[in-house]
Amino acid sequence: MNINGTPTRTIRPIADHSGVEIIDQTLLPHRFEFRTMRTLEEAAEAISVMRVRGAPLIGATAAYGVALALAQDASEARLELACTRLLSTRPTAVNLRWALERMTCHLSPLPASQRKAAAWAQAAAICDEDVSLNQSIGRHGAEIIKQIAGARPGVVNVMTHCNAGWLATVDWGTALAPVYAAFEAGIPLHVWVSETRPRNQGASLTAWELAQHGIPHTVIADNAAGHLMQHGQVDLVIVGADRVAANGDVANKIGTYLKGLAAKDNKVTFYVAMPSPTIDWRLAEGSGIPIEERAAAEVTHIQGQTEDGQLVGVRLTPAESPAANPAFDVTPARLITGLITERGLCPATREGLLRAFPDLAQKVSA
Amino acid sequence: MNINGTPTRTIRPIADHSGVEIIDQTLLPHRFEFRTMRTLEEAAEAISVMRVRGAPLIGATAAYGVALALAQDASEARLELACTRLLSTRPTAVNLRWALERMTCHLSPLPASQRKAAAWAQAAAICDEDVSLNQSIGRHGAEIIKQIAGARPGVVNVMTHCNAGWLATVDWGTALAPVYAAFEAGIPLHVWVSETRPRNQGASLTAWELAQHGIPHTVIADNAAGHLMQHGQVDLVIVGADRVAANGDVANKIGTYLKGLAAKDNKVTFYVAMPSPTIDWRLAEGSGIPIEERAAAEVTHIQGQTEDGQLVGVRLTPAESPAANPAFDVTPARLITGLITERGLCPATREGLLRAFPDLAQKVSA
Repeated sequence: MNINGTPTRTIRPIADHSGVEIIDQTLLPHRFEFRTMRTLEEAAEAISVMRVRGAPLIGATAAYGVALALAQDASEARLELACTRLLSTRPTAVNLRWALERMTCHLSPLPASQRKAAAWAQAAAICDEDVSLNQSIGRHGAEIIKQIAGARPGVVNVMTHCNAGWLATVDWGTALAPVYAAFEAGIPLHVWVSETRPRNQGASLTAWELAQHGIPHTVIADNAAGHLMQHGQVDLVIVGADRVAANGDVANKIGTYLKGLAAKDNKVTFYVAMPSPTIDWRLAEGSGIPIEERAAAEVTHIQGQTEDGQLVGVRLTPAESPAANPAFDVTPARLITGLITERGLCPATREGLLRAFPDLAQKVSA
Repeated sequence: MNINGTPTRTIRPIADHSGVEIIDQTLLPHRFEFRTMRTLEEAAEAISVMRVRGAPLIGATAAYGVALALAQDASEARLELACTRLLSTRPTAVNLRWALERMTCHLSPLPASQRKAAAWAQAAAICDEDVSLNQSIGRHGAEIIKQIAGARPGVVNVMTHCNAGWLATVDWGTALAPVYAAFEAGIPLHVWVSETRPRNQGASLTAWELAQHGIPHTVIADNAAGHLMQHGQVDLVIVGADRVAANGDVANKIGTYLKGLAAKDNKVTFYVAMPSPTIDWRLAEGSGIPIEERAAAEVTHIQGQTEDGQLVGVRLTPAESPAANPAFDVTPARLITGLITERGLCPATREGLLRAFPDLAQKVSA
């Protein structure tokens, strides 16, 4: 996407392969800064503390983490260690495992002398493919928005949750790709941005990237989602996914399930936009998806900007009160109108996924 | 409730009637301070900016606001002006209108010379009755918790939303009264405290008063409610109410509806605890309840405590992003297992309310 008029990706290798630049998303929306990762450990840290986040971008960062890890030592043991370390950073997004398995499959058979260059090339390929998948998702999803716009006058109100935009991917986003595509096609639209506590990826990342792009939007507390749907102020919901089970159940940022319930109760269509690397063909149902429990401090404290421009963290809760922080929930397939994939719209069912991706399903069962 | 071992109400007149002390709830959980209201305008301000909040406490504060207003001038015109000013502070909680109508009915027929003393007495009576109603709610609600505890070993997990505790009333609370009563009866329990964005009454008020009382509890992001119910970690939900329509629809803090949906989807019982002054007999359905839209700054900014103990406000969102802030939503009666009232458990239906309160219903239709 354009940042100050310049096309920009969220992750980019330095030309001499001495490092990889990422946008440090922990500073947004207050500061837009690139940060350079130079080692395996810095890549793992960036994923763990969520300088990068979003299933597709986690996958891309892990791929580059492998490339960084092989800089001095491209042995089989080093490759294995890198994958183990990176896989341990976050449990829920399956794109992480997908990217690491792809790197291993590609690099492991090569002689050690060729692995380093091949790792950089493969990570770049994963990034390019992510952009291409997301553009396809955007094209297919924009059709849904266009249909709504065509059926009646006025602005189309899209609700989203968390950030499944440009910043969650290498470029374009998943849930926001249809929004960007529809906006470029001239469809009048407005996005309800759920702030997405506790990490506020909606308020800080989605709001920021929509503002950068000039797309009309309004930030709301997560609690307001049901009320807006009850009052006919939401035409459709589009969210991203961290892992889709083979039956169409979707793990996504905590609170997605509540939006799914509210959409169902108010007959609002509810779509999940996701590229195929987010499908976990090995998991029969969503109940098997591991749900990350993150630090209580993400609930008890928050970072913001003071009037004089300083970034400070403040405590919100009594010092003696503990907090729990499950980072994802599972939305059952029965609440999902459809999956927007790079191959088009597909029902959130085992049959739907198999019909859309027979080649990928077969690869896993083989 | 006890604060540092001393029984304390949330609102108390100064003996010489020169003012009324309230806990300034905008400073909690970081500072516990009383603040004195000496004029009608100070009472109206305290309600508007939420130094006091919670439907029953808003009613009690308004009653004392009338007493303060009559200090120099107890004319009919002054009484009317006071009621108009106080009624304009917040639109959703019907206890405000109820308390003001009660003050007017009681004071208007009196000679002006008697009104001042009568106003203080009537406000005190409203407060005493609130305490008594809440104790009854506590007794009835505790039975529900005892039944769950009796049916199986282990801790009873109660989920609540916003603050419908001691701090939302004169004493004891509505939704938390059963929790306090069950705790005093020795039932092992634990409370899931939804932080309740954007004003964080859960994280700042409910967590604080439960901690003061030594009741085990855990703060969660509002988004986590559905996930916990999906995983069997919630035995029952108890929330308060700002207005109950004659058919049992309930307006309560924004986000209550989402909890109602999640409870229904997971077969978790969902109770609304409310004293009879919260019933609006004139409203046939919840769709008629006016929903307050509060300032966008409540979503875009938040106040917290820095490490060195300062209270500071910080911005969370991009400066260019607008925000919307509906403060309440309506939970349809169909999602509510029952209403816990001072007269016991009652179905959330027109028939249920009429059976429980035939005297009150008749008074309105008369």
